[in-house]
Amino acid sequence: MSQEKSPLTGGADYRPLDETSLPAYLGKISKVATLLGGAPGAWTVSEVGDGNLNLVFIVRGPAAAVIVKQALPYVRLVGDSWPLPLDRSYFESQTLIAEGKVAPGLVPEVYHFDAAMALVVMEYLTPHLIMRKGLIQGVQYPKFAAALAEFLAQTLFKTSDLFLSAAEKKHRMALFCANTELCKITEDLVFTDPYRVAKLNRWTAPQLDDMAAEFRQDAELKIAAQQMKLKFMGHAEALVHGDLHSGSIMVTAADVRVIDPEFAFYGPMGFDIGALLGNLALAYLSQDGHETPDSPRGDYRAWISRQIAEVWTQFEKRFIELWNTEGKGDAYTAELFADPAGRAALANEQKAYLRRLFEDTLGFAGCKMIRRILGLAHVEDFESIKDPDVRAKGERRALRLGRAFVVNRARFADIGSVCAAVEAAAKQD
Amino acid sequence: MSQEKSPLTGGADYRPLDETSLPAYLGKISKVATLLGGAPGAWTVSEVGDGNLNLVFIVRGPAAAVIVKQALPYVRLVGDSWPLPLDRSYFESQTLIAEGKVAPGLVPEVYHFDAAMALVVMEYLTPHLIMRKGLIQGVQYPKFAAALAEFLAQTLFKTSDLFLSAAEKKHRMALFCANTELCKITEDLVFTDPYRVAKLNRWTAPQLDDMAAEFRQDAELKIAAQQMKLKFMGHAEALVHGDLHSGSIMVTAADVRVIDPEFAFYGPMGFDIGALLGNLALAYLSQDGHETPDSPRGDYRAWISRQIAEVWTQFEKRFIELWNTEGKGDAYTAELFADPAGRAALANEQKAYLRRLFEDTLGFAGCKMIRRILGLAHVEDFESIKDPDVRAKGERRALRLGRAFVVNRARFADIGSVCAAVEAAAKQD
Repeated sequence: MSQEKSPLTGGADYRPLDETSLPAYLGKISKVATLLGGAPGAWTVSEVGDGNLNLVFIVRGPAAAVIVKQALPYVRLVGDSWPLPLDRSYFESQTLIAEGKVAPGLVPEVYHFDAAMALVVMEYLTPHLIMRKGLIQGVQYPKFAAALAEFLAQTLFKTSDLFLSAAEKKHRMALFCANTELCKITEDLVFTDPYRVAKLNRWTAPQLDDMAAEFRQDAELKIAAQQMKLKFMGHAEALVHGDLHSGSIMVTAADVRVIDPEFAFYGPMGFDIGALLGNLALAYLSQDGHETPDSPRGDYRAWISRQIAEVWTQFEKRFIELWNTEGKGDAYTAELFADPAGRAALANEQKAYLRRLFEDTLGFAGCKMIRRILGLAHVEDFESIKDPDVRAKGERRALRLGRAFVVNRARFADIGSVCAAVEAAAKQD
Repeated sequence: MSQEKSPLTGGADYRPLDETSLPAYLGKISKVATLLGGAPGAWTVSEVGDGNLNLVFIVRGPAAAVIVKQALPYVRLVGDSWPLPLDRSYFESQTLIAEGKVAPGLVPEVYHFDAAMALVVMEYLTPHLIMRKGLIQGVQYPKFAAALAEFLAQTLFKTSDLFLSAAEKKHRMALFCANTELCKITEDLVFTDPYRVAKLNRWTAPQLDDMAAEFRQDAELKIAAQQMKLKFMGHAEALVHGDLHSGSIMVTAADVRVIDPEFAFYGPMGFDIGALLGNLALAYLSQDGHETPDSPRGDYRAWISRQIAEVWTQFEKRFIELWNTEGKGDAYTAELFADPAGRAALANEQKAYLRRLFEDTLGFAGCKMIRRILGLAHVEDFESIKDPDVRAKGERRALRLGRAFVVNRARFADIGSVCAAVEAAAKQD
């Protein structure tokens, strides 16, 4: 296990592959070679990585195509000055496999994992588009909400104490405790840097200079953000994806897949749901910048708002269904609640549990929105708006809404109030 | 590390020692041999274990004496039908060493740890008494409250995200994730079995048959106890001792030591504080059974009540002092709260944090009280009361008080209200 778990960063057997060296490497993996078909010389390779941390290749053979994702030992965005451990590739492959077991068809299939090379060979999804790009183009995905609600319910419930024995969960948790460096990125970039002067911060300037300064002085917001950070660091509720924004989802009209769980660890369930809903809110508030006479976005805004409601509502329903039918874990021992009074009390507690999760979700959603506007990593939803005044106007609305989610997370009555707040935010100055 | 971490249960190198074999074994450990002085033939050994899980020897040499504690591969109380992993000896020795670093003088010193033999050689404390025995005898310990407040503040704060980097904490947490079998004992015996029909349960019968039946049907209590269990399983706040009752404390008038942390793991801080306060409440409510004309207990009850208040009050003060002076961890990043508004907001948040911890403490205290009366493992405070009617009367009061702590933990205004509730409970029928 330790051999698979922690390949040394830049260990002796690690070398980054390229278009030229990849076919020979893959030719030796019989499962992959068989999938691709023909001889390695006949395979075409193109590097398509647009992320910050990895090389991503599409390899096409006569019979099929595969994706090869190889971790780089540094953050690609900022070059080799920011080293990153290669074992995130282990966490990603293990998480994809675990997610695939409980949410089949909602993640790409893993064909091969090479720990020493920090490399995963997986299913090539086509003609899928990164959902964030679809959100910018105004494309509706009819399967999206149901798929994500199912993904969240299955992956969070079935890695939690509600489903697993405590021993099994702790065993898995111990492995993911080692993914500290990717957690540290989140701790710094999501929960801390946007609220202080930090070299890597950037925002639409000078338009948002006032908001950035205001947030750095906003003690109430900073406390609330740090409360969420504390939960992120210490509430080991379930194996969370850890980076579940719209850039980690690939979609077609008929299919939805969640990719890229390299930030996975045992953390608070609300972090995943909040990342998703927060990014939908950003998409909503960026529509002004993508609207044209040919592409009005009124209906599309309404569609996004419905997705926010649907993801939460369907998730909540499915999560409770799973609890009632498969709640065999060590938490809330089912035997104690088998009589009528017990069943009624447990049903009430399930509502209270989901209410706590709802508040966590909003808190994390707000933190994720704010970091995308004042921190290092921004989102294409706003970045692709060329007019800085139009962009800043939407970003300002998103900052105020994000703040409300974090600070007032206990005051939103239900998901309807959340959607109403998103819609109201889009009408503010 | 893995060699030290997980000696196989009953591995080839493991053999339980006895009075005869121990000197030869210790003679080969030069540090220990030097401490004891003279030749192994001159050492005397007596087995003094009164716990359930281990052999405990006092070894006396011409120069000094030491304690040798060896784990048995089964629960001593119920014989070899209940196997237990030997690696709890690793968790105990590692925790004693960690505690000793941050709370010097408040735990016994560890001289030697042998993973394969599941054996720790440590400081012999004399003329210390197990505090529970002192509580039964009505002995006041003037250093107790300050020592335990300091122990709790230091060990909990300095293993938490308030003091450690997230990476350091996760690294330590990963090791303790393996202590699942001892956690499972707590999950079952403390949080679950007292609320269901379980073979190992026992209580003073028939006097408490009605209460046992009532609690098994008490859906509100069962939900509240399971809420505490969920925190126990998932809230990795700090390295907790895991079994901090008055039987894990050795005292003299001048000295206080905390022993036996084999249940240690990363869990909720309130579990340790609650165990301690809950056991003090049990001691209070058992005084009727120990009172004699020669030994009236009015003053002693008042002393115990003051200890409950003092432990919490001094703990709270010390914890916040540590946060203010050594709060260099990744939680509540100090830099964000360096301005006057930030300092004020952080001071408020510290109060809110301690309030949340206070409620957890009460919840855990109540669970620990109930399990000692309806579950497998009872406390000598009550067991030593020979008249079952007198014993049951105190136990009944403890059950009602424990229930109030668990169910109404959010309704106690402060530690003064807790002491008042303990005092009022002692006057109930």
